[in-house]
Amino acid sequence: MPAPTGDQLNAVLDKMPVARLALQGLDGQAEVLAIVLARAAGALWSPIDGKPKRSGRKLARLACIEREPCTMLLFDHYDADWQQLWWVRLRCAANVVTPTHPGWPAAVAALAAKYPQYQTVPMFKDAPRMLRFTWEEVSVWSATAAALPRWMAGQLGAIA
Amino acid sequence: MPAPTGDQLNAVLDKMPVARLALQGLDGQAEVLAIVLARAAGALWSPIDGKPKRSGRKLARLACIEREPCTMLLFDHYDADWQQLWWVRLRCAANVVTPTHPGWPAAVAALAAKYPQYQTVPMFKDAPRMLRFTWEEVSVWSATAAALPRWMAGQLGAIA
Repeated sequence: MPAPTGDQLNAVLDKMPVARLALQGLDGQAEVLAIVLARAAGALWSPIDGKPKRSGRKLARLACIEREPCTMLLFDHYDADWQQLWWVRLRCAANVVTPTHPGWPAAVAALAAKYPQYQTVPMFKDAPRMLRFTWEEVSVWSATAAALPRWMAGQLGAIA
Repeated sequence: MPAPTGDQLNAVLDKMPVARLALQGLDGQAEVLAIVLARAAGALWSPIDGKPKRSGRKLARLACIEREPCTMLLFDHYDADWQQLWWVRLRCAANVVTPTHPGWPAAVAALAAKYPQYQTVPMFKDAPRMLRFTWEEVSVWSATAAALPRWMAGQLGAIA
């Protein structure tokens, strides 16, 4: 399957609320977690946010990424109609950034625009930090040629 | 957060249609993919199935798992109400099995019962094979104590 068009990729990155992040754990084994993220300044940004979590786990995640920045993000669409399935995977380089990063204000604005939940949930807890992902390789799979365009049309319909 | 009860874990494994699988790629980097799977004979089973995919990619996945059986499965629930979020992660050993495995008939029956899609989509393509996962460690996170029980109640309501 060819790479998605720029419009398709942007629709996936901007409309899918969750991505699944694969990273290499400190023990070298593959781990996977669900994250929220938004696109801004040519990258994807995921806040180390105010959703209640064990802080020890968050710190371990940061240490993993600082040790091995090569990660993968999966955006996949499930539907009981298996003709509608599709996914997009991004091979990424990830790093941990602080508010001094030049892309920070645009990233905060993009996250606030995508997730109204941040009106009540703090975007950051303690020292503000984000994971920043830049992608090096995009792969896409769609059960039928119509599956991804049909999902996109539904997203645009939902906006209009 | 304590481990889920047996009932909670079984509800998650039996009702969630998709899990995200993290594995170590042949290049040693973490990868993630979405899979369907069912619980039977004390394990989780995912067919190398008839959904149209590039067969080269499937074969690569099998080679990765034969090389490094240590994998992770994530079952996560997203909701626009972030108080309802939860996830369950299983650290697994995976292996590739054929119909000679003693658990095979129970696994096929569990997959057919969970996914009516297999009435029209072939469960296997070419030589029948499945990924079989046994879990060694379960971790769970829930945004609030009520999130996972509330999702479970919704699942039971959907059946009744």
